[in-house]
Amino acid sequence: MALPFHPAGDDPVPAALRGFARAHADLVELHEKPAHLVARHRNPGRRVGLVSGGGSGHEPLHAGFLGRGMLDAVAPGKVFASPHNKQVLEASRRAAGPGGVIHVVKNYTGDRINFGIAAERLRLEGIEVRRVLVDDDLATESDETATGRRGTGATVVVEKLLGAAADTGLGLDELADLGGRFAAASRSLAVASRAQTSPHTGEPSFPLEDGELEFGVGIHGERAQKTVTRPPLEDLVEDMLDRVLAGLPDGPDDLIVTVNGLGGTTLLELYAINDLVGAGLERRGLTAAGGLVGTFVPALDMAGFSLTLTRLEPSWLHWWSAPAVTPAFPRTPEETA
Amino acid sequence: MALPFHPAGDDPVPAALRGFARAHADLVELHEKPAHLVARHRNPGRRVGLVSGGGSGHEPLHAGFLGRGMLDAVAPGKVFASPHNKQVLEASRRAAGPGGVIHVVKNYTGDRINFGIAAERLRLEGIEVRRVLVDDDLATESDETATGRRGTGATVVVEKLLGAAADTGLGLDELADLGGRFAAASRSLAVASRAQTSPHTGEPSFPLEDGELEFGVGIHGERAQKTVTRPPLEDLVEDMLDRVLAGLPDGPDDLIVTVNGLGGTTLLELYAINDLVGAGLERRGLTAAGGLVGTFVPALDMAGFSLTLTRLEPSWLHWWSAPAVTPAFPRTPEETA
Repeated sequence: MALPFHPAGDDPVPAALRGFARAHADLVELHEKPAHLVARHRNPGRRVGLVSGGGSGHEPLHAGFLGRGMLDAVAPGKVFASPHNKQVLEASRRAAGPGGVIHVVKNYTGDRINFGIAAERLRLEGIEVRRVLVDDDLATESDETATGRRGTGATVVVEKLLGAAADTGLGLDELADLGGRFAAASRSLAVASRAQTSPHTGEPSFPLEDGELEFGVGIHGERAQKTVTRPPLEDLVEDMLDRVLAGLPDGPDDLIVTVNGLGGTTLLELYAINDLVGAGLERRGLTAAGGLVGTFVPALDMAGFSLTLTRLEPSWLHWWSAPAVTPAFPRTPEETA
Repeated sequence: MALPFHPAGDDPVPAALRGFARAHADLVELHEKPAHLVARHRNPGRRVGLVSGGGSGHEPLHAGFLGRGMLDAVAPGKVFASPHNKQVLEASRRAAGPGGVIHVVKNYTGDRINFGIAAERLRLEGIEVRRVLVDDDLATESDETATGRRGTGATVVVEKLLGAAADTGLGLDELADLGGRFAAASRSLAVASRAQTSPHTGEPSFPLEDGELEFGVGIHGERAQKTVTRPPLEDLVEDMLDRVLAGLPDGPDDLIVTVNGLGGTTLLELYAINDLVGAGLERRGLTAAGGLVGTFVPALDMAGFSLTLTRLEPSWLHWWSAPAVTPAFPRTPEETA
């Protein structure tokens, strides 16, 4: 492993988990062997536990969203690798409420398999499980493969809405249905101007020339179908907005806008992008009813950003606004009034 | 200007400010000509307004810390350039309370001059002003220059503590004295493995070979006195911890630990560093009574990190723990219990 500031050994994740647990000891507890993290607090109305997880290298996802109003436990894999099913199993045992447990799974084969094995075991133990699959990445929309769209930036939005819904005391089937609707109402597209540092070589994971743009990149450095000349930012954002809007199913005109940094992109740039997105929506008669701007689902230190739009049903708005007391989710308008 | 995702024109800051104001309309309002941002809410006990500012490119500093419990107004300059004194003047007029206004200034010549001119004008208008100068960077500690240490990562800590102190209704002289003590109790050191992208050329601002480390880098890409071969992370952190501890004035053994990313460094690495710092403090019989891990005072997209330690007087602990309702300051233990 060869990130610039990599601790000794092959795997930086255990040290990072310990450092995370040190930094947020008031909110989370770390269990090792197998590694999983559990929120210390949950809102009393919650009957169904929420568990997520996936490869590391996307921090603050998922552990940064542990806590009241969002996730109850997470299973962190090695960098860009699915967690072992035993991690998911332990996380789920601790998180399960009287109504069972929901797995929020990004759509990657390894994650689907490992969460699936864990779910089978949980059922044998009498714990009911449902899965919410997040599959928002338009770059992988194709009729030709059975894999479907990858799960990317919408994951935070799904976890936020689902957490608030779970706090109202809804049951397992209702939450699984809602979670599926949150995911179905979300689409994303990502671009990169520089690949992430390869944890294996210390070099960029794929080559990009100055002025090139990987249009439709994945959050593990999956290359896009096309590498293009980087257009002016105004044109790029307009094009992405058109594509994401076209990819969204029909629904309400109120949107949650997520401008997500992929790791090496400054807030200065992300906020400028957010201004272009906001102005572009206004020109189309659409409304940003809420949003996130920052580095929430990066691909290590990749330079780039993703745009996620989620069509917000009117009844979901208060779930978006409800506080989420976690290490990384920002304050919501309900808290700041 | 040539950041990868740079809007049209020479200056990315106006678009970024608009995008920031869009994202955080519940917390801040943006005024243009001259550009400054004002917090929408302040705690009712506060009698003295707190104003900060400085060059852009360090986001979330300073505007991310606008709001109840921290700053009342900020003046953002162009990238890595001091704000104009008229920006500081307008920000201060809006922020001033019945007890006057405090300027939190990072120790750079341009900032000192521009905040100084604004202070003179405010005094002519009958508004009392005191300055809190943040000068924590050990890499610039020297008897040979009159400039003194640069202001870097400690700025967030000073702004947090001073905000909470101001909310208790303290007066101008008491707050200026306290602010000076917060700054004096803080020391920092920063390292980089890759320079930030030059906003002028789009290339790294200075060359570093693979495996080299700029030891004592500044947050505008000021080069260090020495470029070294990058040591193993454990040795690097131990060395930095020794130096920062040696640079701190005598005082209590309880510390606030700030592990700050310089822009292009992953949370995975920052949390691993935080674990090494925490373990290193424990071996020395010292306590991390609080801390921050994340990207708070970056140098655009520089790959690197800084370590800041602040000796925490027992009477300051509740100021550290008090909530700060801002776009970017994390939740405090008082909020999460």
